[in-house]
Amino acid sequence: MVRKNHRFTLAARPVGLVKPTDFAFEEDDLRELDDGELLVKVRYISLDPAMRGWMNEGKSYIPPVAIGEVMRALAIGGVVESKHPRFAVGTHVSGLFGVQDYAISSGEGVVPVDPRLAPLPVMLDTLGMPGLTAYFGLLDIGKPVAGNTVVVSGAAGAVGSVVGQIAKIHGCRAVGIAGGADKCRYLGEIGFDAAIDYKAGDVKARLREHCPKGIDVFFDNVGGDILDAALTQLAPRARVVICGAISQYNNTTPVKGPSNYLSLLVNRASMTGMVVMDYAPRFAAAIGEMAQWMAAGKLRSHEDIVPGLAQFPQALLKLFTGENHGKLVLELPA
Amino acid sequence: MVRKNHRFTLAARPVGLVKPTDFAFEEDDLRELDDGELLVKVRYISLDPAMRGWMNEGKSYIPPVAIGEVMRALAIGGVVESKHPRFAVGTHVSGLFGVQDYAISSGEGVVPVDPRLAPLPVMLDTLGMPGLTAYFGLLDIGKPVAGNTVVVSGAAGAVGSVVGQIAKIHGCRAVGIAGGADKCRYLGEIGFDAAIDYKAGDVKARLREHCPKGIDVFFDNVGGDILDAALTQLAPRARVVICGAISQYNNTTPVKGPSNYLSLLVNRASMTGMVVMDYAPRFAAAIGEMAQWMAAGKLRSHEDIVPGLAQFPQALLKLFTGENHGKLVLELPA
Repeated sequence: MVRKNHRFTLAARPVGLVKPTDFAFEEDDLRELDDGELLVKVRYISLDPAMRGWMNEGKSYIPPVAIGEVMRALAIGGVVESKHPRFAVGTHVSGLFGVQDYAISSGEGVVPVDPRLAPLPVMLDTLGMPGLTAYFGLLDIGKPVAGNTVVVSGAAGAVGSVVGQIAKIHGCRAVGIAGGADKCRYLGEIGFDAAIDYKAGDVKARLREHCPKGIDVFFDNVGGDILDAALTQLAPRARVVICGAISQYNNTTPVKGPSNYLSLLVNRASMTGMVVMDYAPRFAAAIGEMAQWMAAGKLRSHEDIVPGLAQFPQALLKLFTGENHGKLVLELPA
Repeated sequence: MVRKNHRFTLAARPVGLVKPTDFAFEEDDLRELDDGELLVKVRYISLDPAMRGWMNEGKSYIPPVAIGEVMRALAIGGVVESKHPRFAVGTHVSGLFGVQDYAISSGEGVVPVDPRLAPLPVMLDTLGMPGLTAYFGLLDIGKPVAGNTVVVSGAAGAVGSVVGQIAKIHGCRAVGIAGGADKCRYLGEIGFDAAIDYKAGDVKARLREHCPKGIDVFFDNVGGDILDAALTQLAPRARVVICGAISQYNNTTPVKGPSNYLSLLVNRASMTGMVVMDYAPRFAAAIGEMAQWMAAGKLRSHEDIVPGLAQFPQALLKLFTGENHGKLVLELPA
C-alpha cells in the first residue's frame, strides 16, 4: 500500500510578515521505511512564534529551514509503521515532525507521550514546550519569591498564561500584558491579579499603577516598546527573562533595542536569555509537577485548535497578528 | 582667621555635552564649624563619567545635584579643623567633598585613607572607586574563569584598564577596546592580549579576529554601537556587565538601545547592571588585595593629573571627548 503525503515546504524566505506564498503545498507518495526508521501519522501540529525565526537565514540556536524543505514544526502523532527498535506501532510520540500528514523519522528527538496524562493538544501546550518554557524561564531565570510582582508580556499566549499561573502558585502578584479586552478578561479568569491592554494606551502608566513596588520579574515574550516600558518600572535587583520578541520577528528594519536598558544599571538588575531545550534532562519532572497542578485545578490550559493541514499558512499568521486565543494547534484527521 | 573658599556650582542642567557655562565659579568666606563637623582641605578631585548623570534631573541611584549647589565630586584631602569625634586634624580622608577648595562635612560617607599605601591620586583611581568598580563588576558579576575571553570597552580608562589587568591575573585572555593608537599601545604595555581601536573601523570584525571562541565576559563602559558589536560575538552563557554608557551620557536624543540584545537569548547570556556602592562592606578587603597586586607589579595605575581648581570645566570635558589618558584627577595646592 502506497500512502499519499501532503506537506508545506518553505518556498521563499519571508520579508516582514509571513505570507501564504512563502510556502508551497505539495503531495507525493511515501517511500518505504529503511531499517531504524519509524512512520508517524501526524495528529496535532504546534504553531509557535519560534517558527518565524527558523525561516530566516543565518546563525541561531538551530539551523534555518532550507528552501524546499518541509516546514519545521513540533507535532504529536501515532506510530503507524516501525522498523525502529524503540518505537512500536500504536505508540504516541512527539517530535519535530514538520507541517505534513506523515513523517518518516530516525527516532532522533522523538519522545513517547502518555495520552492518559492529558488530551494530546495539551501535550503541545501547557504540558509541552510552551509550558516548559514558562516553567524553567520563570523559576530558573526569574527566580520569583513569594510576595514578588511578576509581569509577563504576551500574557494570553501559551507561554505567558502559564507564567502568570505559576507565579500565583508561588505566592507572587501576577500582572499580564496582552492585546485587547477579550484577552485581558481571560487573564482575570485564570487568576492574574491585573491585566494591561497594550492596545488601550499607556502601558508605562498602567504598570506604575498595578506594580506600586516595581517589577521584580519581567518575563518578556514580545520585545519592542513593551520591553522598554517595563524597564522603566523595575524594582531593585529585578530579573528580566528574555524568552522571545514576537513584536520584532517580522521586522524588515533592524530590531528595536531596549532604549531603557540603563535601568539595569540603576536597579542592579539583570536581563537573561533562555532556550528551553537546555533543560531537557528536567522535562519529565517539570511535566509531572505541572500535571499535578492541572489535576488540582491550579493550572489551566486553553488551546485554539484549527482543523485541517491546508489552514497552516493562515493559522500561522494569526500568531503574529495576535488573533489567536490560547495555544494555536493545527488538527489533522486520525 | 577667615578662610576663603572657591568652588564650582551647577549653574544649568546641560543639554548634550557639558559646557563651561553649565557651572559657576564662586568665592565666599568659610563659616565656623558646628559641633560634629570637620573641615577638609581638598587636595585631589576625581573626575568621573558618573558626574554627567548627577547633573541631570530625574530619578537615579543618587539624587541629582541641585542648581546652585556645589558640583558633587569624590575627593581626597586633609582634615584641617575638627569638631568631630572620629576625625582628628591631620588625618587624610576621602568623601564626596565636591569641586571646591574646602569642604565642611558631617563625617557622613567620609573614610580615612592611608597615605602610606599609595600616592593619594592612586586612592582615587586603582585603589579607589574606579578600581573597586572594576574589581566587583568583573569578579562578582562577570565571574570570569581561567581561559575565558574578557573584553572591556573604555579599556584605557580608569575602570577599563583595571578590568583587563584583573582578567589577566585570573588567567583570562584580555581584549580592550579604546579610541586611538596611543591608548591601544598603552593597553599592550599593561598586559592586554589585544587592543581594538574603535576609531580605526570595524569593531565587529576585530572582535571576531581577537575572540575566536567568542566573548565570555563583556564589561561595558561605553554603550551604543560598541555594545551592539560585542553582543554579536558572545560565547554561550556569556556575562555582559553594564557598568556605564559614556557614549550615551551627553545624548540629546533617546539612548540607543542595544539592537542585538536577542543575542542574549540565542546564547543563553545575561546582561547585568552594577553600582559599586553596593559592595561597600567589602571595599577594604578588595583594596588590600589590589594593593598587593600593585606591590607585586601585576597591577599598574596611571593618572592624568590636571593642576588647578579653575581647570575643572575643561578637564571634565576631556572625559567625554576621550582626550584623557588614565584616570583624570584635578590637583589643588596643599
